[in-house]
Amino acid sequence: MRYVIVGGVAGGATAAARLRRAYEMAEIILLEKGPHISYANCGLPYYIGGAIAERKKLLVQTPETFGKRFRIDVRIKNEVIAIYPENKYLTIRKASGEEYKESYDKLLLSPGANPVKPPLEGINSEGIFTLRNVEDTDHIKDYITEKKVKRVVVVGAGFIGLEMAENLHQAGVAVSIVEMGNQVMAPIDFSMAAYLHQHLTQKGVSLNLEEGVTHFRRTDSGITVFLKSGKTIPTDMVLLSIGVRPATALAQQAGLRLGEMGGIWVDKHLETSKKDIYAVGDAIEYPHPLTGKPWLNYLANPANRQGRIVADNMVFGNTVSYEGAIGTSIAKVFDMTVASTGLAAKHLKQWGIKYQSSVTHSSSHAGYYPDALPLTLKLTFHPENGKLYGAQCVGYKGVDKRIDQIAGLIKRGGTVHDLMETEHAYAPPFSSAKDPIAIGGYVASNIISGAMPAISWRELVKEKEQVMMIDTRTAEEYSIGSIPGAINIPLNEMREHLTEIPTDKPVILFCAIGLRGYLAQRILMGRGYRNVRNLIGGYKTYSISNAPVLKT
Amino acid sequence: MRYVIVGGVAGGATAAARLRRAYEMAEIILLEKGPHISYANCGLPYYIGGAIAERKKLLVQTPETFGKRFRIDVRIKNEVIAIYPENKYLTIRKASGEEYKESYDKLLLSPGANPVKPPLEGINSEGIFTLRNVEDTDHIKDYITEKKVKRVVVVGAGFIGLEMAENLHQAGVAVSIVEMGNQVMAPIDFSMAAYLHQHLTQKGVSLNLEEGVTHFRRTDSGITVFLKSGKTIPTDMVLLSIGVRPATALAQQAGLRLGEMGGIWVDKHLETSKKDIYAVGDAIEYPHPLTGKPWLNYLANPANRQGRIVADNMVFGNTVSYEGAIGTSIAKVFDMTVASTGLAAKHLKQWGIKYQSSVTHSSSHAGYYPDALPLTLKLTFHPENGKLYGAQCVGYKGVDKRIDQIAGLIKRGGTVHDLMETEHAYAPPFSSAKDPIAIGGYVASNIISGAMPAISWRELVKEKEQVMMIDTRTAEEYSIGSIPGAINIPLNEMREHLTEIPTDKPVILFCAIGLRGYLAQRILMGRGYRNVRNLIGGYKTYSISNAPVLKT
Repeated sequence: MRYVIVGGVAGGATAAARLRRAYEMAEIILLEKGPHISYANCGLPYYIGGAIAERKKLLVQTPETFGKRFRIDVRIKNEVIAIYPENKYLTIRKASGEEYKESYDKLLLSPGANPVKPPLEGINSEGIFTLRNVEDTDHIKDYITEKKVKRVVVVGAGFIGLEMAENLHQAGVAVSIVEMGNQVMAPIDFSMAAYLHQHLTQKGVSLNLEEGVTHFRRTDSGITVFLKSGKTIPTDMVLLSIGVRPATALAQQAGLRLGEMGGIWVDKHLETSKKDIYAVGDAIEYPHPLTGKPWLNYLANPANRQGRIVADNMVFGNTVSYEGAIGTSIAKVFDMTVASTGLAAKHLKQWGIKYQSSVTHSSSHAGYYPDALPLTLKLTFHPENGKLYGAQCVGYKGVDKRIDQIAGLIKRGGTVHDLMETEHAYAPPFSSAKDPIAIGGYVASNIISGAMPAISWRELVKEKEQVMMIDTRTAEEYSIGSIPGAINIPLNEMREHLTEIPTDKPVILFCAIGLRGYLAQRILMGRGYRNVRNLIGGYKTYSISNAPVLKT
Repeated sequence: MRYVIVGGVAGGATAAARLRRAYEMAEIILLEKGPHISYANCGLPYYIGGAIAERKKLLVQTPETFGKRFRIDVRIKNEVIAIYPENKYLTIRKASGEEYKESYDKLLLSPGANPVKPPLEGINSEGIFTLRNVEDTDHIKDYITEKKVKRVVVVGAGFIGLEMAENLHQAGVAVSIVEMGNQVMAPIDFSMAAYLHQHLTQKGVSLNLEEGVTHFRRTDSGITVFLKSGKTIPTDMVLLSIGVRPATALAQQAGLRLGEMGGIWVDKHLETSKKDIYAVGDAIEYPHPLTGKPWLNYLANPANRQGRIVADNMVFGNTVSYEGAIGTSIAKVFDMTVASTGLAAKHLKQWGIKYQSSVTHSSSHAGYYPDALPLTLKLTFHPENGKLYGAQCVGYKGVDKRIDQIAGLIKRGGTVHDLMETEHAYAPPFSSAKDPIAIGGYVASNIISGAMPAISWRELVKEKEQVMMIDTRTAEEYSIGSIPGAINIPLNEMREHLTEIPTDKPVILFCAIGLRGYLAQRILMGRGYRNVRNLIGGYKTYSISNAPVLKT
């Protein structure tokens, strides 16, 4: 039995190794168009920035060691140029240009994704790069060194864009980000991205939101980036990190079905529309477990998982179904961490799914133990049964573990009530007696049960003139700054000031983060007030979400 | 309606605050025999060691602020000395010695637990302490300062014992630990505790395992601790951290039913055997969710959770059931972290529950990113269906997040197969494309499916003479040290050395951590070998588990 695998990075290499473990006597051929297999994609920005000092650390396996250990015929610099499913063979082009044929019994496609490069004037100028593989990395690193690059414009503020911004900054380069959206990190909601805007600016990164590139011009001293607003940015180098698209050229040539998101269509066994041809990784689309709708995930973890599953299906018949990925992701952005799982409010809105959200501000661990740092958690959930749709978290420490736990719960159909039952490993250096995710669960459940009628910062911006706003923080906190129009009745004095609060007007309570507002709300509701809402996430969420749009 | 709460720390204070939120007009009385309420118990060792510099940080709430905010009649230094359930009143003794009565409609007991103090000669000498509350903390800290304490003997190497050992060491005190068992941290298995033995010794802590105290003697220069072995340790101070027992004196006086573990019996609504008397926290016992058998948990997180549930039940009738706790816990031990959830192999053995275990060694995050540190994970699970029973983890970073995720899975009835589907937040600073818990799941599932027949280090110690042991590491690794009697066939050369491996004798394969042993096993099994087992956790687990017992 001959297995042929096209693409030797995450999904392809994993599948090849698993195939060998499952079937010692099989013939396995791994075809990779580039010079490297199984390298550390996710480490590339850190090598450019210098956090990873040695290039060889990126090369997890060499073609030789991998081939020897797993008895696999690894052929680098061998590009598959056509697939003939009816006769089960491929045409392959060597680096020399020579072409040859190879037959297969079972074929796996793991071609990955290609960086988006819009057809802008000047985009192919020297000094404009995309980052996808080791060769790109080498080119960028060499260029920075040789040209003594001091200024870089990063176009697109997604994962790669922000990781590169950080790493270039660490390497002593002045970084300007240009992003078409009104926020960085598109998968998360605006109020969460706002913390990153503040942090990036504090770190000295120039942030140009709601800005597009019209064209590039190569000059004697570098490149000029022309923006839609008319602004120009002179720079030494440009990194395009606008996004990626599934690499489907080969699949299309072979007549494989593509899905509605533009990825290779696969069934639950990861088999394509042609028998005995399977596909994994960034190139495929697969139904999102929460919506059932096709979804693209450009993530390493699902690619690895798929590689393993598909190997079993190729050897043992289609026995293992892939469960799908809800899109759990994380990025280090300077000192902050941002992570997300499942569906953010913006996606739920797009899809017309009814939802509610909570925002809670906690500490990474017990506040009385040194180095506790703020952590903000946003949950999205079904407004009645509390089924969890998604979570986003921004902070400095412990962001990863909160999102990991919630991701596990979402994948198993969990609700906000399950979060309340969180039994976590608690000692002061690690968490608090109530973990931030349990707090999130409690708040969400209070919203659902009606114990805490709530208002979002967006709703308050609209309703502001029609409501009475009460800041329940102390007089000292109030004096430093509050929502314009709010009066101050500190929580601890609430019961003595009831006569000042009208019963016939909507009342909005708020405090710094939401807790004191809630306690005040319980006092009022327990004394007969009917129309009292607490501001979700408190003044902290309101003020960061209403901060002036950053223009530098 | 009058609610009376006995005990103002974790469970009691949480319940009081929740009661107020649920029922603004209720009368609530909180009785606490000590001078403080709602303080940071878990922070006490860190204040003694100086990591927490300010004493006031321990006092989360004062009786005054708490009483004012929640409109609660807080009475500190008021000790309840008797309960009369038939007539629904209490007798209370003030600090002055004066006694008075107070009636209740609903009563909550949150008395906590008391440190064990065996009746040893000299145990009440000056300089011998237990640590349970703020007063104990003050006494210990004052004693260390006033007496210029340079040497401390810690008796008992559980959570408090190890946290105190670390904190005293950080404060410049020489620490000797005396522990009756053959390991520290009794809730985890020996092979996992062994890492802590090594670490404690490296840090300069004197570790006396399998040692008991016979008596103490006060001398002019301090205290002499006499051990069963005949050894004596001269010291300036002794900390007894042998364990705690539920504080049940009051419950017994009131005629409440105690359970078989010696805690206060409660039903699923946390109501005791007498109507309108509820109990929470360290004093109660409750069925373990995995075994259904009564279990004691001395943990802050369950106490808080119970406090919230019981408040709802006291106000709204018995509507909320407590789900029970599986005993998730963690400790920082110098640079290491040890954490555990569910049932360790030792418990499963005790209870006669059939189980299998896996041990995997991973990195805290991607190995190519700076500061990745080793992390060891042990899973226990049903040998056929893979239902997860427990997990233990020892490492330097990221131990908490792995145990938190697995705890969540165990509480929801998850299996090792669910671990394989782990979709975690991956970027190089946080994890690897396959997270350590996914690796654990894959290994466990390979054991269950028969893809990886396995042998434990304990079994190998017994079978050693009857098997052929093959070290599949490189010749270089083998030359530094291996299991005596093992021959060396490096994985990458395995296929060329098949003739050297007998088919009629049991073969045990091993490598450093288990992966190469497994790959070698797949080669042999794929070529017809029938009796080939891989050593669980590899040479790393074997060698640390067989390290000579530390005697200092």
